[in-house]
Amino acid sequence: MSYRAPVDDMAFTLKQVAGLSEMLEQGAYPDLADDLVEAILEEAGRFATEEIAPRNAKADMEGCQLQENGTVSTPEGWKELYQTWAEGGWNALTGPEEFGGQGLPLQMAAAAMDMWNQGSMGFAIGPTLTMGSVEALEKHASKELKDKYLAKLVSGEWMGTMNLTEPSAGSDLNAMRTKAEPVGDGTYKIIGQKIFITYGDHELTDNIIHLVLARLPDAPAGTRGISLFLVPKYIVNDDGSLGEKNDLRAAGVEHKMGIHASATCTMAFGDNGGAIGWLIGEENRGLACMFTMMNNARLMVGIQGVGVAERATQQAEAYAAERKQGKRVGAPKDGEMEPILVHPDVKRNLMTMKALTEAVRSISYRCAFALDQTNLALAKGDAKSAKHWQERAGILTPIAKAFSTDIGSEVASIGVQVHGGMGYIEETGAAQHMRDARIAQIYEGTNGIQAIDLVTRKLPLSDGAAVKEMLVEMSIWAKRAAESEDGRLALCGEEMIESLEDLNFATEWLLSSLKDGKPNLALAGATPFLRLFGLTLGGILMIKGTILSSEQQHSSAAKRLALLRFYCVNLLPQTTSLLDAIVNGAESVMETDVVFDGL
Amino acid sequence: MSYRAPVDDMAFTLKQVAGLSEMLEQGAYPDLADDLVEAILEEAGRFATEEIAPRNAKADMEGCQLQENGTVSTPEGWKELYQTWAEGGWNALTGPEEFGGQGLPLQMAAAAMDMWNQGSMGFAIGPTLTMGSVEALEKHASKELKDKYLAKLVSGEWMGTMNLTEPSAGSDLNAMRTKAEPVGDGTYKIIGQKIFITYGDHELTDNIIHLVLARLPDAPAGTRGISLFLVPKYIVNDDGSLGEKNDLRAAGVEHKMGIHASATCTMAFGDNGGAIGWLIGEENRGLACMFTMMNNARLMVGIQGVGVAERATQQAEAYAAERKQGKRVGAPKDGEMEPILVHPDVKRNLMTMKALTEAVRSISYRCAFALDQTNLALAKGDAKSAKHWQERAGILTPIAKAFSTDIGSEVASIGVQVHGGMGYIEETGAAQHMRDARIAQIYEGTNGIQAIDLVTRKLPLSDGAAVKEMLVEMSIWAKRAAESEDGRLALCGEEMIESLEDLNFATEWLLSSLKDGKPNLALAGATPFLRLFGLTLGGILMIKGTILSSEQQHSSAAKRLALLRFYCVNLLPQTTSLLDAIVNGAESVMETDVVFDGL
Repeated sequence: MSYRAPVDDMAFTLKQVAGLSEMLEQGAYPDLADDLVEAILEEAGRFATEEIAPRNAKADMEGCQLQENGTVSTPEGWKELYQTWAEGGWNALTGPEEFGGQGLPLQMAAAAMDMWNQGSMGFAIGPTLTMGSVEALEKHASKELKDKYLAKLVSGEWMGTMNLTEPSAGSDLNAMRTKAEPVGDGTYKIIGQKIFITYGDHELTDNIIHLVLARLPDAPAGTRGISLFLVPKYIVNDDGSLGEKNDLRAAGVEHKMGIHASATCTMAFGDNGGAIGWLIGEENRGLACMFTMMNNARLMVGIQGVGVAERATQQAEAYAAERKQGKRVGAPKDGEMEPILVHPDVKRNLMTMKALTEAVRSISYRCAFALDQTNLALAKGDAKSAKHWQERAGILTPIAKAFSTDIGSEVASIGVQVHGGMGYIEETGAAQHMRDARIAQIYEGTNGIQAIDLVTRKLPLSDGAAVKEMLVEMSIWAKRAAESEDGRLALCGEEMIESLEDLNFATEWLLSSLKDGKPNLALAGATPFLRLFGLTLGGILMIKGTILSSEQQHSSAAKRLALLRFYCVNLLPQTTSLLDAIVNGAESVMETDVVFDGL
Repeated sequence: MSYRAPVDDMAFTLKQVAGLSEMLEQGAYPDLADDLVEAILEEAGRFATEEIAPRNAKADMEGCQLQENGTVSTPEGWKELYQTWAEGGWNALTGPEEFGGQGLPLQMAAAAMDMWNQGSMGFAIGPTLTMGSVEALEKHASKELKDKYLAKLVSGEWMGTMNLTEPSAGSDLNAMRTKAEPVGDGTYKIIGQKIFITYGDHELTDNIIHLVLARLPDAPAGTRGISLFLVPKYIVNDDGSLGEKNDLRAAGVEHKMGIHASATCTMAFGDNGGAIGWLIGEENRGLACMFTMMNNARLMVGIQGVGVAERATQQAEAYAAERKQGKRVGAPKDGEMEPILVHPDVKRNLMTMKALTEAVRSISYRCAFALDQTNLALAKGDAKSAKHWQERAGILTPIAKAFSTDIGSEVASIGVQVHGGMGYIEETGAAQHMRDARIAQIYEGTNGIQAIDLVTRKLPLSDGAAVKEMLVEMSIWAKRAAESEDGRLALCGEEMIESLEDLNFATEWLLSSLKDGKPNLALAGATPFLRLFGLTLGGILMIKGTILSSEQQHSSAAKRLALLRFYCVNLLPQTTSLLDAIVNGAESVMETDVVFDGL
């Protein structure tokens, strides 16, 4: 295993392609100098490479179990790994400075999270949830709650969880049943069961802060009757010390396909009368509080796809460079066997892995950039800019989540294939990446739901103007490439202009379908549309990276051109067939009563 | 779990689309009446549905372990299942009548194997290997060996294995090291280690017949110095009773991603001087013997993809019809939640699964038809017809193997997605299908190797005439559809004509590249070409099924048209982008030294 966090390439994509350097130059983050960015990424890369990555396979094999005493075991060394990581300040990267955080832009978190996921998806998903908890408390909790909990969540001394799902309430939270009864002293008794709770219980930290959605008595039906509560595993005394265990427990740990190092728990609240909870934000506004953190959480799950794709690619490339079978065409008959990387079919596999990984990394980092711009504009009170970037981030988020995680799985699967029979043997590690990657397409809103969000909520933003403005910006890079004197880059630009036409056409068609009262036709095309958008956007950002790296004579310039060229000629042509599926395929999706027995 | 073998649809595809009825009408199988075909399929379907399928999940959880006493454990009830199955005569379906087999066409085995794999991939792969052993012995072994072993392998009283792979000799068998030393009495001592041996050891049967590739002393280097040996687990006495244990053992059982019910063993031959083996066929001609059975084995692995796709599809559809989340667009706000199957995105997922499953089933059965035609022509001594069908089967086999297994994995992965979070929980079963399906893309020659075989060995058959004749035949069905009075079918025909143009163009381009001394360009496009071929051929066969089912007023007619229509508008347009990747993408695959550090 020769994994190494590719810090230089990631830094270039972050600074130049996403645009962090642009923000730094404009003085957006006075405390963040260019060399500090590099130093942080270098150090994160070192931690991912040396500390996290080597433990990934073993943690997968050990997994987490519910013990007889009701606690949940974690893999050997996992607690020490987490504590070393938190003590290194990594959990506090983006946390509010008021509570001990470093207040760094989300772009830095994106790059760091990319590396933690390269190291281990099962590790990185825990802190992702804590980050979300910090955000929800920071934006919605009372000063009292903030003072009591935020510092320790920011430092990582405690971890946070999100408790949304119930057996009958998954993607549709209307049916949620968990109850919250006011005690009268400002607290609530929480009673109910939640499922699929990531890092729901463990002993990595002394306390766990659960954010729980529940219904107040007489709350309106549906999602407008849901409130958000803070429910600590151990009650926190006024002096900050830990008191009694709260009335909650892990009632089960799921047996999953992957991310075995992450305990996915069924949580039982109120076996003995009710777990004590505190309201976050207003009554019946819990879903809005949750939605605040959804954007970031979705981006961070997208980055899981990026991270696992990177890891799988490195592993496959190392194997292909080492494993000898066959010879290149034309080699002497009696010559030695050569590394399989000489075979064109293996080259194609590895080029596909590398090009797609760069595409989804660029999209995800760019999404973080848009979220950072939003926060900056809000902080400045610049409403116009805030709206612009909020809409841009709104469009980018479902693409970053769904396209990146689809690619994560696809790349990890190609990685298995490159290993041949060894890929199917668990000890090799390639299968783990594929098993781990698979969940990211599902949680934080399935990729189908992301596609529906993109089509039905994001395309119509500002009556379609938001997406159209974005498409115009994208076309500028395509034209720059098409006008290049380098014939290879010019060809990429031309391919990209065609794909942009497909994307424009599909966008208009979907907007018209929605306006003309044919929402089912738009919904039927949502998934191919998200892929069409992702493929095109990824290519545009790779053009940007190629042009800028060439201008700046960055060490990655030649490689970026080769990857771009491969991408534009081999993968980008798919946009035409995706457009077909969207525009011509919808009716064939809906007129299927004969297939589904009239359902 | 509401799995049921879809016998009616399968029978129609087998008889009308593949062409079994055509052969029956021509009197190819005088003993096989139409109602016998139906009866056999019905009974196989019952066995798969009632006996195999219910044991699949539990067997996956239990797996196989190497015991301290050196034996390999199998899942509880597995031995009884296998024995009931063999006693039902299922193992003998295609075996030679001379040795107790039923001598049925391979098409019947294909449909039956489809069902065994629907029931459990981990089960079906065992008998697949026995079938291969029967074939190798029947075609190449001496009368003495046949008389001693064939009847019991045909009945399934004993099982067979194939021992090819060694740690340094996988896809490239040149480096094989296992030795065979002549004892002088007509036997050989086999010494060496083989890996990835499917059903390498178990106690389902009293004996296991290993077919082992090994090198004689002073054999030529490379694959022309490899011989094939029969090496029984227990020596068989002249009276047919079992004698001493041979000098071989399972030295390890792999910890795999899936098909846990199938023990994948490392086999050690000759720890104590040498396992006794008997030569099959001629010295140094072992690879040719192995290749005899390769075609059938590759088809049967392709059918694993078909079977697991069918099972995953049924499971996803049942879940989608039951699981309630959200409501269809336009439903009353206060209405109840509806099954997720009402959502267009879920419909798209299920239609994709169903359409692709029918496509790969049609291709696989058609491949079995071509193999049956070959055998028939050989039996008749009709050399011209034999050559024709041998070439046709040669073209169809890598497509049936690789396209079907790629689709098996893709469909199983969509199945996980339809289940949402539940799909990632092992107890649901959807994840098992995805884990199981993954191996079929790898073993019996990776799908990359199948693509290379298709492009470099099969396209050039009869100087390209074989494939061109096939393309002409395909175009006839496309034209028939295009000329249909049903506008929906006509549209499909038109789409298909376009895809056939893509396929024709790609075929010519690849043949030219090979002729012009640019094999690397052809090799670089092999994988997208195989997919282009598979997508187009699958659609053509679905057109055939749609037209014939409509003409014959078969119950599946309306459903076949709906699936075809979905397929042609949503999936078939991919052929254009695949053509692009083949023709324009090859150089971008090869000019990548800058990416791979000059390797």
